[in-house]
Amino acid sequence: MPVQLEFAKGHGTMNDFVVLSDPDGSFDPSPAQVRFLCDRRAGVGADGVLRAVPARFIEGWAGKPELWFMDYRNADGSLAEMCGNGVRVFLVFLKAAGLVPADVESVTIGTRAGVRIGTYLPAGGVRVWMGRPAVEEPAVEVSVGSHTWRARAVDVGNPHAVSVVDADRLRSLDLTRMPAWSPSDAFANGVNLEFITPVGANELRMRVFERGVGETFSCGTGTVAAASAFAADHGETEAEYVVHVPGGSVRVELAGGDAYLSGPAEIVYHGTIVVPEEEHRG
Amino acid sequence: MPVQLEFAKGHGTMNDFVVLSDPDGSFDPSPAQVRFLCDRRAGVGADGVLRAVPARFIEGWAGKPELWFMDYRNADGSLAEMCGNGVRVFLVFLKAAGLVPADVESVTIGTRAGVRIGTYLPAGGVRVWMGRPAVEEPAVEVSVGSHTWRARAVDVGNPHAVSVVDADRLRSLDLTRMPAWSPSDAFANGVNLEFITPVGANELRMRVFERGVGETFSCGTGTVAAASAFAADHGETEAEYVVHVPGGSVRVELAGGDAYLSGPAEIVYHGTIVVPEEEHRG
Repeated sequence: MPVQLEFAKGHGTMNDFVVLSDPDGSFDPSPAQVRFLCDRRAGVGADGVLRAVPARFIEGWAGKPELWFMDYRNADGSLAEMCGNGVRVFLVFLKAAGLVPADVESVTIGTRAGVRIGTYLPAGGVRVWMGRPAVEEPAVEVSVGSHTWRARAVDVGNPHAVSVVDADRLRSLDLTRMPAWSPSDAFANGVNLEFITPVGANELRMRVFERGVGETFSCGTGTVAAASAFAADHGETEAEYVVHVPGGSVRVELAGGDAYLSGPAEIVYHGTIVVPEEEHRG
Repeated sequence: MPVQLEFAKGHGTMNDFVVLSDPDGSFDPSPAQVRFLCDRRAGVGADGVLRAVPARFIEGWAGKPELWFMDYRNADGSLAEMCGNGVRVFLVFLKAAGLVPADVESVTIGTRAGVRIGTYLPAGGVRVWMGRPAVEEPAVEVSVGSHTWRARAVDVGNPHAVSVVDADRLRSLDLTRMPAWSPSDAFANGVNLEFITPVGANELRMRVFERGVGETFSCGTGTVAAASAFAADHGETEAEYVVHVPGGSVRVELAGGDAYLSGPAEIVYHGTIVVPEEEHRG
């Protein structure tokens, strides 16, 4: 049956989302419905859908049942563990929609990668505890066209592979097709691929090819993976980087094994849409 | 001052529009505001903005003052005379928003190319009288990369140049950059460039590079220009073509010098947004 939905549209560093409030756990969108919502012409248009749903409705959730759970779907309809830019947009939405008190400073949410804690910044935006990234030695190779780099695998709740490339190469990389990696079975569930270059003291420039999406303007967990890999390359465990992505800039802090991501987020508009049950192209 | 707006989002053959109702003529969007609304990440996202405003508010309008005027802006903020897909979406919006009676069969609107008459089709969609296209002999040349074709200039209220190319070429044309034309002063105000190939009896396949936009999924006036140019090539004055564009299919009828365009149109969702005064990237 078609369903009428209220939604919000927001973005963090141009990584954009359709955000849904589902306090009753009554709307679990099908992959076709997610694809429709994310279609930039036939639907609303976004990199993904964020559904705010009480965690008790999430099968297999073993944490606190009263947390708001960020049910994140990629634009292609697939499930995703986590999205760093999404967490910031999600927190701004929780407050704007009155799902958390207006004067709250921090909110703990559930995600498929575990709990995340976000703090509203006085100047706007959100700082998010992103967990403890697991950085491996450079043991995989990533190829774009005829160029190949050794890459570090980094787990930030979702899988990443980070390659350091030179500044000219970063600009000219053709990311219209999915890069290859080897060994080809290194990432059974796919991987997000980051390409970085240092551009100043504690500053990185990054491009990213997101699993299930393609090149995007930004990827929050990707910036954390990038900072973690770059710090590991230089034997640093305490470090802070500004990471410039095509859609803006964020800050990554690494301290005692924990990672924190700070950046902008905003809700741009609110809407009402009838979502067809079947995939639909008008 | 920032302004809060209600809007609708709609499309016809994937040519998509932010549609605004402005019965008081109180919101004349600046180019920066149009660019914001059409930004697919920081704003709503569309190929253009359609404002429904009584014609009496349009400077220089000499026709009936009580008509609804389709104030069409391109995504880059520039003014445009006409948009065939836009007219269909505009008519569906007029009815959905209650700006015309629910049982009306035809509506006459004002556009910068003069009045247009649209008829609601029983099966959905709209048939629009598109005026009397003026077709010239093939006297200009259009180039994409190293390929050049002679093209007919066609005036459908806005300027077009139509090139007939072979089927393989149509598929492989690189329209990520603006094609060139010569003589370079042939179109003082720019031009929309159509590339067509016949694919069956009275069927054309078309790609289009729209002035101020780039390659689009569809261009309504472009399909009329394409049909008019193809008919002229074959000495036809009465003809009917189905024109396939990347975003769908439309029908063009040519009769006694008049052109009629029929095709689908729908409103996808409604929203509320605060539009900043200055250009804005979050």
